[in-house]
Amino acid sequence: METLAASDHTSVVSINIFVALLCACIVLGHLLEENRWMNESITALFIGLCTGAVILLVTRGKNSHLLVFSEDLFFIYLLPPIIFNAGFQVKKKQFFRNFITIMMFGAIGTLVSCSIISFGVSKLFKKLGVDSQDIGDYLAIGAIFAATDSVCTLQVLNQDETPLLYSLVFGEGVVNDATSVVLFNAIQGFDISSFDYSIGLHFIGNFIHLFLTSTLLGVFTGLLSAFVIKKLYFGRHSTDREVALMILMAYLSYVLAELFYLSGILTVFFCGIVMSHYTWHNVTESSRITTKHAFATLSFIAELFIFLYVGMDALDIEKWRFVNDSPGTSVAVSSILLCLILIGRAAFVFPLSFLSNLAKKNTNEYITFREQIIIWWAGLMRGAVSMALAYNKFTRAGHTQKKENALMITSTITVVLFSTAVFGLMSQPLIRCLLPPGKVSASVASSENSSPKDSITVPLLGHRVDDSENPRPTSLRLLLTTPTHTVHRYWRKFDDAFMRPVFGGRGFVPYVPGSPIERSTPAL
Amino acid sequence: METLAASDHTSVVSINIFVALLCACIVLGHLLEENRWMNESITALFIGLCTGAVILLVTRGKNSHLLVFSEDLFFIYLLPPIIFNAGFQVKKKQFFRNFITIMMFGAIGTLVSCSIISFGVSKLFKKLGVDSQDIGDYLAIGAIFAATDSVCTLQVLNQDETPLLYSLVFGEGVVNDATSVVLFNAIQGFDISSFDYSIGLHFIGNFIHLFLTSTLLGVFTGLLSAFVIKKLYFGRHSTDREVALMILMAYLSYVLAELFYLSGILTVFFCGIVMSHYTWHNVTESSRITTKHAFATLSFIAELFIFLYVGMDALDIEKWRFVNDSPGTSVAVSSILLCLILIGRAAFVFPLSFLSNLAKKNTNEYITFREQIIIWWAGLMRGAVSMALAYNKFTRAGHTQKKENALMITSTITVVLFSTAVFGLMSQPLIRCLLPPGKVSASVASSENSSPKDSITVPLLGHRVDDSENPRPTSLRLLLTTPTHTVHRYWRKFDDAFMRPVFGGRGFVPYVPGSPIERSTPAL
Repeated sequence: METLAASDHTSVVSINIFVALLCACIVLGHLLEENRWMNESITALFIGLCTGAVILLVTRGKNSHLLVFSEDLFFIYLLPPIIFNAGFQVKKKQFFRNFITIMMFGAIGTLVSCSIISFGVSKLFKKLGVDSQDIGDYLAIGAIFAATDSVCTLQVLNQDETPLLYSLVFGEGVVNDATSVVLFNAIQGFDISSFDYSIGLHFIGNFIHLFLTSTLLGVFTGLLSAFVIKKLYFGRHSTDREVALMILMAYLSYVLAELFYLSGILTVFFCGIVMSHYTWHNVTESSRITTKHAFATLSFIAELFIFLYVGMDALDIEKWRFVNDSPGTSVAVSSILLCLILIGRAAFVFPLSFLSNLAKKNTNEYITFREQIIIWWAGLMRGAVSMALAYNKFTRAGHTQKKENALMITSTITVVLFSTAVFGLMSQPLIRCLLPPGKVSASVASSENSSPKDSITVPLLGHRVDDSENPRPTSLRLLLTTPTHTVHRYWRKFDDAFMRPVFGGRGFVPYVPGSPIERSTPAL
Repeated sequence: METLAASDHTSVVSINIFVALLCACIVLGHLLEENRWMNESITALFIGLCTGAVILLVTRGKNSHLLVFSEDLFFIYLLPPIIFNAGFQVKKKQFFRNFITIMMFGAIGTLVSCSIISFGVSKLFKKLGVDSQDIGDYLAIGAIFAATDSVCTLQVLNQDETPLLYSLVFGEGVVNDATSVVLFNAIQGFDISSFDYSIGLHFIGNFIHLFLTSTLLGVFTGLLSAFVIKKLYFGRHSTDREVALMILMAYLSYVLAELFYLSGILTVFFCGIVMSHYTWHNVTESSRITTKHAFATLSFIAELFIFLYVGMDALDIEKWRFVNDSPGTSVAVSSILLCLILIGRAAFVFPLSFLSNLAKKNTNEYITFREQIIIWWAGLMRGAVSMALAYNKFTRAGHTQKKENALMITSTITVVLFSTAVFGLMSQPLIRCLLPPGKVSASVASSENSSPKDSITVPLLGHRVDDSENPRPTSLRLLLTTPTHTVHRYWRKFDDAFMRPVFGGRGFVPYVPGSPIERSTPAL
């Protein structure tokens, strides 16, 4: 009778099931909160798998998923909130203090990992008789499996207890996301068959250019939002307009980057950092609380959605049919990939940690061997980015007819499921074992109040107290001996002298007469 | 080079323009805030029109819009947040106190309006030579133009200064939305050619059944969310999970209603009311602020999006081409429709206000003639619901080939643009003239703290002070003489004795040991 809804009742049914399952994931995740092994991602993955099985039974083996996997859905709607929130909530001081190490892990590490996996795959696949792929395909496989998913580990690590470890794992995850997508696209675009050194140099130049322009675009959009909200004094009329503008500007930075063929992930990540450093301090108190939680919630829902989807898609019968005739090959391919991931990651985590420790004067800042194991472990999981890249490479609109491509898709699914479920399940006990509770990392455990993560409880006037102006005696030596700290100090001076008076920021808003902060309560 | 984005670069361009325009609307709307004539909707409409004109010039008259108007987009993604937020922010006491009057205006008024427009159209269109439509089409036109859009007026009215007027206009708008969609679907579904009285009764029975089941579903989902969040004590672990669950449950209520062919609008509206009455009090303080502003922001963005879209779509060349040969007919049809809207609304606002005043013992509660004029005026605008229904009736996937259908679409666009721009522009001066600032309406101006709109500033313990237990002497007579107040009093008793202890609510959360409210600060 209701023609409006009837026009596509099937999609309404899918949306219903999806939304209901998301609710179930949240409730179950909450109930399993105290559990040693489980976390929200794994719960969503299992619920997705069960639902896929039920749908498979109900449709009698014809179908197992509700929506066709769409890269657009993933790259245009689900990924931006996750990465933006990552930038928005990151502890900036830790992040920039370890910037060089993070960049080494994220960029060089991903390249090393990608090379090892590509090389290993090109040698080992031939022995299995799966040799129809060319060098471009092997490199793409390397890029696909170099994309880590550290969400599981981050859910276990505590940002306050182990700030160094957290910022390394987290920062590496973000830079890795960006690097592997950029790498994948670069590989897709280049004509690999006529490879020589000038192309290699061109490739590296391209990569650096992309990295810098993407970052600058993100910083520019973030600063623009801070400037507009500060100058136009939005809090005067409506807190909802501030929040809407922040959401839209953040999203705009991502789609602008996509428009100019840049890395949207990097752009939106740096936009998040700049917004949390400037814009967030220019809005009313309610807007601050709202943006902090609203961004986290959006990111949370997007993450759950992805894991639920990956679980549900794992049983897609169409792809497994191709594998049926040679199950041994499929198992062999997946095992090879898993081994290469383990080796590829070990090959850069331990050497780079050694290099990073060499550069440090203060032994307190060393990355201990236990921490190195955790960093190694944290990057073993493969998630939605790998899936999306594999779908992009080996399918057309979610379908495939070629046997080799189906094999690669099923292997990716196997690796993602196995690594997330098995490695993911083990990460909580492993971390508890390596870092007993209460053992606060010996590295800099300085308080960091300027990120939206924890400054809500600070009273309004307390914002004026700026702890960077009075470095504690212990960190004075650090400031003088290590270059990163010196850069950081000069940055703080520049920030206080020029950036904050223009764009607003912690401690600088109350000085502006009639700024939003003073009127935040009546403006409600 | 970047193949991921290149796969549909056109849609990335569209998204960019749309997001940038939305930002522009917010900034311009903020700058024009003090302006006597403008408001955000009209700004968005004009920006949409200008963009449409620019696109028309750039594509050399081939195209004027970026996205094809999709009912799914409108009914599945844009409408739910607007209606949910309406329910969530409504002043419940005023709403339920005037429940009978609101239902009269919303349900009976819409039926009267629809009948008059249908009748007028069926008589007058024949004289114009536009007589290819059957009786079903005429009734559908009646339903399309009975759907009002009171957003413009609500932006001007002040909920605190004129609570009665605001609740009447607002409540009527929501009930009208629901009624016209239900009516439209009922008309589409029935075989009108064999109309008799039993079908008429069946129709009314259907309507009441739909109304009740939709309301109950919304209330049920809202209560479920309150119960789950209260029992499982979500605030203990994460405020983001609470917010995510509230958003998802609200959306679930809407899609569940669509699944069962009910009225999603009514369901999500009542879900919003129940959530603001129970669930909202069970979550942490941060979640309260977040949900309040996040829902308002989502609704704000969705509204802007619709107005922007309607403006951009108005210049769609394909539909205007059909009209080119007979511009006179098009003008005549639009004028007839506008006149019928004016008459159809006057035909029920003044008589029903008279009836409503008759039923009231207290002259302070009378709807004055000035207020009646404002109520009449507030419902003259036609907006996105009319557009969506017209597209549903007269096009297939946004396109039409029949001349009469194109004429109806262009007439709808003309009516929407004219009424929103001209009537909308005049509404602010009109209201200022009829209700001079400072003249607080003589009707009940009681303080209403229980809605999320304004109870943020109330300290936590203050929630326990429940003003309903001590009715002021002046309202004692009212309670005894008018049935609505008696019902309200019994409801409050029932609510306090049974509902609040189970589902939580204002003043009842602190009594439960270990409830989220006690731990809201440390749980951050």
